[in-house]
Amino acid sequence: MRINGRDYRTIWIDDDGRRVHVIDQTRLPHCFETRTLDDSDAAARAIKEMVVRGAPLIGVTGAYGLALAAARDPGDAAIEAAHKKLLATRPTAVNLRWALDRSRDLLLAAVPELRADLAYAEAGRIAEEDVASCAAIGDFGADLIRAAAEKNPGRPVNILTHCNAGWLATVDWGTALAPIYKAARAGIPLHVWVDETRPRNQGASLTAYELLGEGISHTVIADNAGGHLMQHGLVDLVIVGSDRTTRAGDVCNKIGTYLKALAAHHNDVPFYVALPSSTIDWRIADGVADIPIEERDAREVTHIVGRAGDGSIVEAQLTPDGSRARNYAFDVTPARFVTGLITERGVCAATERGLKELFPDLADAA
Amino acid sequence: MRINGRDYRTIWIDDDGRRVHVIDQTRLPHCFETRTLDDSDAAARAIKEMVVRGAPLIGVTGAYGLALAAARDPGDAAIEAAHKKLLATRPTAVNLRWALDRSRDLLLAAVPELRADLAYAEAGRIAEEDVASCAAIGDFGADLIRAAAEKNPGRPVNILTHCNAGWLATVDWGTALAPIYKAARAGIPLHVWVDETRPRNQGASLTAYELLGEGISHTVIADNAGGHLMQHGLVDLVIVGSDRTTRAGDVCNKIGTYLKALAAHHNDVPFYVALPSSTIDWRIADGVADIPIEERDAREVTHIVGRAGDGSIVEAQLTPDGSRARNYAFDVTPARFVTGLITERGVCAATERGLKELFPDLADAA
Repeated sequence: MRINGRDYRTIWIDDDGRRVHVIDQTRLPHCFETRTLDDSDAAARAIKEMVVRGAPLIGVTGAYGLALAAARDPGDAAIEAAHKKLLATRPTAVNLRWALDRSRDLLLAAVPELRADLAYAEAGRIAEEDVASCAAIGDFGADLIRAAAEKNPGRPVNILTHCNAGWLATVDWGTALAPIYKAARAGIPLHVWVDETRPRNQGASLTAYELLGEGISHTVIADNAGGHLMQHGLVDLVIVGSDRTTRAGDVCNKIGTYLKALAAHHNDVPFYVALPSSTIDWRIADGVADIPIEERDAREVTHIVGRAGDGSIVEAQLTPDGSRARNYAFDVTPARFVTGLITERGVCAATERGLKELFPDLADAA
Repeated sequence: MRINGRDYRTIWIDDDGRRVHVIDQTRLPHCFETRTLDDSDAAARAIKEMVVRGAPLIGVTGAYGLALAAARDPGDAAIEAAHKKLLATRPTAVNLRWALDRSRDLLLAAVPELRADLAYAEAGRIAEEDVASCAAIGDFGADLIRAAAEKNPGRPVNILTHCNAGWLATVDWGTALAPIYKAARAGIPLHVWVDETRPRNQGASLTAYELLGEGISHTVIADNAGGHLMQHGLVDLVIVGSDRTTRAGDVCNKIGTYLKALAAHHNDVPFYVALPSSTIDWRIADGVADIPIEERDAREVTHIVGRAGDGSIVEAQLTPDGSRARNYAFDVTPARFVTGLITERGVCAATERGLKELFPDLADAA
């Protein structure tokens, strides 16, 4: 997608076919910088330091990390060591393990002299699959936006989103933002309410930055504001992403998603969740009971990072010395508050039946 | 209430009986400083610059401002001029106008040589009335906390609050926090979840600071977290304040209150609103339709103020250049999501009937 009028993906290969480039997301939205990953150590650091983030992008970066390792030493031991090192950067990232296992298994089955090329090809394939999946989510979701536009001709469709489920979390297009990009490119007038998404503010920083780049009208709001907006008819639909979706349609997503779903429910605002099928956990039905919620460093609540007047990046303490904080990173929205799931195979009800009809192959395999 | 082990009110008179002292709330929670108000200009500046904030405290400061003016020049013209200047500091603050009118009318009916003493006495009376009202709210609310404690013996009562409806917004005790202080002093074990309350962060700064001073166990959370906590049984009751309450029991309070009320409703958590009867607007029933919601400077959303590592106070920009923001300051929680109203005359249902039974005199006068 576009930044300052130029098209980017979040990760790409140098003309030399070997070096990997990524956008440094730790510097956004205040500085746009790219980083070059020369070897698998650099790839591991980029994942660990959140230079790249978002499950799909982490997976692709991992696969390229393995390719960088194979280019240097295609032996079994080197590949296994790189796999281990890359996996340890974000041990709970399911996508990372999946991408690393897929690449490693392919490489170990080939003769060493072919492995580097195979590894790059496989990482590229994983990236292209992600782009295709996000683009399909975008097309299916754009139909929902188009339908909302036809209900209220002559005024923009107001869409509220939470956190960043945009192209910066994937390779291109994004998940929750893909329908917005597709609709905007189809000429549907729209406006996006962007929840700032405390404590890490991925909405105010990354989502706003993405929408600016694409020239899409948007307004940043405090996370507290969504209920008021929905009460007053200022939101036509909500689209959020998902970190994990149960087979019954319960959605685990960034903390605060559940509160917006409740407000949507009480104000008859459609609440959609955009997700690639890779986030569906077929083993679990009841998300509230069975999905453990990660707690992150309390410092993300007691402190905040921003740009000072002189342009420097500062960290500011918000709470008094001595007050403690807790930082629950996700919450679960029960399926009954979800209007529909937007997947790469179409839109379905947030129910076991809805998901199984779209993904009988995955449901059977689980 | 206590700060660093010493008892304070938010406003008090010097031993000379003339000069007025206040806590500088713009510096909290990072620095505790007091300011001396030598004349009515200083009182007006303190209100305008939010050195003092909270409807009751603003009213009392206004009344003392008039007393400072009368001490310097008790003539009609000087008193009217001071009234006008003080009122202009926060033109929409109903309490300020009420306190200023009450004092001015009393002074103008007396001979000039008595006016300064009368004005100080009246300001003191307004302050004492506020303290008594808050203390009564505290006593009635503490009974609810005691009842919750008796349901779960052996573990602290978990109370969630939003924004700052504490003693710093009043003269002493506060409104939503008064029951917590009374309960804690009665030895009831409790723990407070403090919503940080973006965009101005009055929870993370002022409420946390108050609770620290009183030695009450508390944890600051992002505004997004309350739904998750309630889903998992980690909140026994919610107590918030109110800026304006309709005669039908709809509650206008800091933006985000409504979202917490919805979560409480869906998770069977009692949701109480503490309010002095002065916030009841008997002319209005439907708060969502009829209470205009103030919009404040978008900079409160795009920027945040905190303490840098070197101890200096910094303002940090959170959004990218070019993204706009909107800042709705309040929202309305419909009465059906409110378990009860805690007033200075007792606890009642959030209904017209409930309020009229407690306040027949006020309902009739309106």
